[in-house]
Amino acid sequence: MRIYDVIEKKAAHHELTKEELQFFVEGLCSGKVPDYQAAALIMAMFLNGMSDQETADLTAVMADSGEHIDLSGIDGVKVDKHSTGGIGDKTTLIIGPIIAACGGKMAKMSGRGLGCTGGTIDKLESIPGFQTSLTQEQFIHNVNAIGMAVTGQTANVAPADKKIYALRDVTATVASIPLIASSIMSKKLASGADKLVLDVKMGSGAFVKDLDGAKKLAEMMVRIGEMNGRETVAVITNMNRPLGKRVGNLLEVQEAEQTLQGRGPEDLTEVCLCLAAQMLSLAGKGSYQACYEMAEATLKNGAAQAAFQSFIQAQGGAYDVIAHPERYYEKPAERTIHAKQSGYLQILSAEEIGRASMMLGAGRETKDSRLDYTAGIVFHKNIGDAVDHGEALCTLYAQDSSRFQEAAAVLAGTVTVTGRQLKPEPLIFIKMEGHPSCVGMR
Amino acid sequence: MRIYDVIEKKAAHHELTKEELQFFVEGLCSGKVPDYQAAALIMAMFLNGMSDQETADLTAVMADSGEHIDLSGIDGVKVDKHSTGGIGDKTTLIIGPIIAACGGKMAKMSGRGLGCTGGTIDKLESIPGFQTSLTQEQFIHNVNAIGMAVTGQTANVAPADKKIYALRDVTATVASIPLIASSIMSKKLASGADKLVLDVKMGSGAFVKDLDGAKKLAEMMVRIGEMNGRETVAVITNMNRPLGKRVGNLLEVQEAEQTLQGRGPEDLTEVCLCLAAQMLSLAGKGSYQACYEMAEATLKNGAAQAAFQSFIQAQGGAYDVIAHPERYYEKPAERTIHAKQSGYLQILSAEEIGRASMMLGAGRETKDSRLDYTAGIVFHKNIGDAVDHGEALCTLYAQDSSRFQEAAAVLAGTVTVTGRQLKPEPLIFIKMEGHPSCVGMR
Repeated sequence: MRIYDVIEKKAAHHELTKEELQFFVEGLCSGKVPDYQAAALIMAMFLNGMSDQETADLTAVMADSGEHIDLSGIDGVKVDKHSTGGIGDKTTLIIGPIIAACGGKMAKMSGRGLGCTGGTIDKLESIPGFQTSLTQEQFIHNVNAIGMAVTGQTANVAPADKKIYALRDVTATVASIPLIASSIMSKKLASGADKLVLDVKMGSGAFVKDLDGAKKLAEMMVRIGEMNGRETVAVITNMNRPLGKRVGNLLEVQEAEQTLQGRGPEDLTEVCLCLAAQMLSLAGKGSYQACYEMAEATLKNGAAQAAFQSFIQAQGGAYDVIAHPERYYEKPAERTIHAKQSGYLQILSAEEIGRASMMLGAGRETKDSRLDYTAGIVFHKNIGDAVDHGEALCTLYAQDSSRFQEAAAVLAGTVTVTGRQLKPEPLIFIKMEGHPSCVGMR
Repeated sequence: MRIYDVIEKKAAHHELTKEELQFFVEGLCSGKVPDYQAAALIMAMFLNGMSDQETADLTAVMADSGEHIDLSGIDGVKVDKHSTGGIGDKTTLIIGPIIAACGGKMAKMSGRGLGCTGGTIDKLESIPGFQTSLTQEQFIHNVNAIGMAVTGQTANVAPADKKIYALRDVTATVASIPLIASSIMSKKLASGADKLVLDVKMGSGAFVKDLDGAKKLAEMMVRIGEMNGRETVAVITNMNRPLGKRVGNLLEVQEAEQTLQGRGPEDLTEVCLCLAAQMLSLAGKGSYQACYEMAEATLKNGAAQAAFQSFIQAQGGAYDVIAHPERYYEKPAERTIHAKQSGYLQILSAEEIGRASMMLGAGRETKDSRLDYTAGIVFHKNIGDAVDHGEALCTLYAQDSSRFQEAAAVLAGTVTVTGRQLKPEPLIFIKMEGHPSCVGMR
C-alpha cells in the first residue's frame, strides 16, 4: 500500500477502507507518512467529508494506536461521560460525586485545558496537594473504594489523535464533524468504559455554534460508539452562556461544592442531574426518571458532598481550600463591574467570557502558560435577571491586578444590560438515543 | 497575514487575492510556510478549484519567485513554444530549425525528462559534445547569429513552481487543470518570450486523457497568458499514439533530421508545420497559411536541415553522430517484434510505449537514473497500416540486452494487429484563439 494512493482515493471522493485508514494512522505515528502527506489527506477528509463507516473505522484505528486502559478491575458497568467543552463547565466535579453517592462508578480520565478555560485536571490542581497522576492500581482502587477517581490522560492514549489534532490545528481543518467526532471517540474507546454519555455543547462558547451542527456531531458520535460496541447517549446543552455563575479554576471547585450542597445555580444543577441520571440509567440503576430523583436526593441529603470530600482527600487534596482559600493562596485582587443602566442581564457571547477569563490567568494562551488558580469571574446575577443601575454584575479576580484592564474591556463588550426582558433559551436542547427527552427542560 | 487564515479561506471556497497567493508562495520559498501547511492549501486548491483570476495571479507570483530571463538582446518578436509532453515528442528539434530557416528566432529553455521519455535536453545530450548549459551571452548570441538556441533551465526560473510541484507530486494533486496551467505558464512568463504557442497533448500518453480536459487546460493557459500580457495560441494534438516512428534520445534526433530533410513521418511533419506556422504568424511573418507554406518549403529546399546543422555545431555537438552513431557509441543490441497475424497495426496506449522505452533505458525512473542514449523503439509501420503475419512491427534497442524481456512484455500488450481497419483519429484536434483552425487536419 502507498499513502499516495490513499490520498488520491480520498481526493477522488471514494470511501477509504479500514486497512487504508490504519495504514495512514500507523504511518503517521511511525513517521513513515510525512506530515505534508498527512496534511493533504486530512484536508481531503475535511473537504470531501467522511462516511459513517469511515469515521467509525478512523476512530477505531486511532484508539488502537496506543494503550487501551483496562478497567476490568472495577466492579459493575463503567459509564464514562464526555463534554465537548465550554465556559464554566465543571460538571465532572459534580456528576462524579452524585454517581458515587448513588452507588455507581465513575473512572474518569481528563485533560488539561488549552485556550479559554482550564480543563478538569487544571481545576482539580487548584486544590493544594491534589494528585492528578494516579497509577493504574491507585486509580482502580479509588474507584472501587470511593465510587470515583479522576486522573490525567496518560501520554499513550490514542497518540495518533494527538498527531492528527496537531496538524488539524495548523491547517484550518479543526471544524469538521467527522474529524471532531473521531478525535473525541478515539480517546473514549481507548479509555475502557463500557458505555458513554456525551454532553455536546452548542453555542457561542462551544466548538459547534448551531443546533444543526451539534445534532450531526451528536448523531455521529452515537453511531461511532454503537459501531464499536459501546452504548452511547448524547445530550445537547446550551453554551451560548457560561454554565453556572463562576468561571476560573478554584472558583469552579467552590461552585461545584455549592451545587453538591444543593445550593448551586439552577442551570448547572439541572445539566448535572440530567447527565448523572443518564449515566446511572445506562449503568442499570433504573429508569431515567428514577435515576434523576435518586441523583437529586443526594444533593439534599449530603451524600454527594460527602463523596466529593472523600474523592478529594483520597487523591491527597486539601479539602479545606474550598471554604478557606486564604490558608493556601494570597487573596487575589478584585474588580467589580456595575450596571450602567437598569434592565435585564444579557451575556452576548460565552466565548468572550472565556477569553476574559484567560486574560485574567485562568486559562492558557500557550501550552506553557502558568495558571493563576485564584483568577476568574463571578457573576452576581443570572442571565435575564432584573438589575438596577449601579448594581454589581460580576467581579473579576486575579493575583496580578494589571490584568484587569484588558479583561474588563472584553467583558464590557459582552456583559450587557438590555431594556427588554429576554425569552429564556432552553438549557438542554435535545437528547439522542432511547431515553426520555429533556428538550427544553428549563 | 497568517497562512492559517489563507488555508481556511480557500477551504471555505472563497477566492484568494493576489496578496494572499503571494504570501503563500513567498512563505513556501523562504521556509516560513512549512510543507504541511502548503500541502493542505494545495489540496484545498485541488479540490475546490481555482478561478481564472486566482490561477493567473498564482502564475504571476510563481513567475516572480525567481529570475526573469532578459531576452531584449534578441532582435524581433520572441515567440516561445511549449509542449505539455508526450511520447516521441521531438518537435522542438524540428520547429527550431524551420523557424530559423524562415528568418524567425527561437530562444528555447528546456527541461530534462522525468518518467516515460527524455526531455529535449536529454535528446540533445545524446549528441556528443553538445553543450546544454549556455551562458546568457552565448545563448543570445547564438539566437541572433543562427536563429535558434536551446539551453537547460537555470535553477532560478520560478523556484516556487519547483517546490509546489514537488509537493503536488507526493500528495496526488498533480492532475488539477489550474495547477498544471499555472505551473507551465509560470515558467513561460519568466522565460522572457513575447508570445507563446502551446502544444497541448491529449490522449493516453499525455497528462490530459480526454478532449474536454485538454480544452479546459488550453483555454486556461491562453487566458493566463493574456491576463499577463502575452499573446498566446494553443493547439491540441493527439497523444493516443507516439508522435513519429521513433522513441528514444538519439533515435529521435535522427528522426528530426529525416523530417528536416522532408522525409519524416507524416504525423510528425504535420504537427511541426502547424506549430511552426503558428509561431511564425505570431511573430508577424504573415498569415497562418502563408507561414505554413514558407515552413513547408524549408523542408524541401534544405534550409531547415542546414539550420539544424548550424545549431548543433554552434553548441559544440558532433553533427555526424546522426548519420554515423557507430563513431561515438557501441552498437546497441536489438530485438524485433513481428506480427503474429495479418491485419492492421494498432497501438493501444502511447503511455505503455513510453514505459517500455523507459525500461530500455531511454527515460529516467528516478532523478538519478543514467540514460542509455542509444536505447529506444523504432516502429516500422504507421498506425492503421496493413501488416502481414510475420512482418516486423517494431525494433527495440538497448546497450543492455537484459532489458528487452520486460520491455517486450509491455509492448506485447499494447502493439497489436487487429482484423478491422481503423478509422484514423485526428492528429490535431483543435486550436484556441484567433488563427485559422487546424481541426482534423489529417
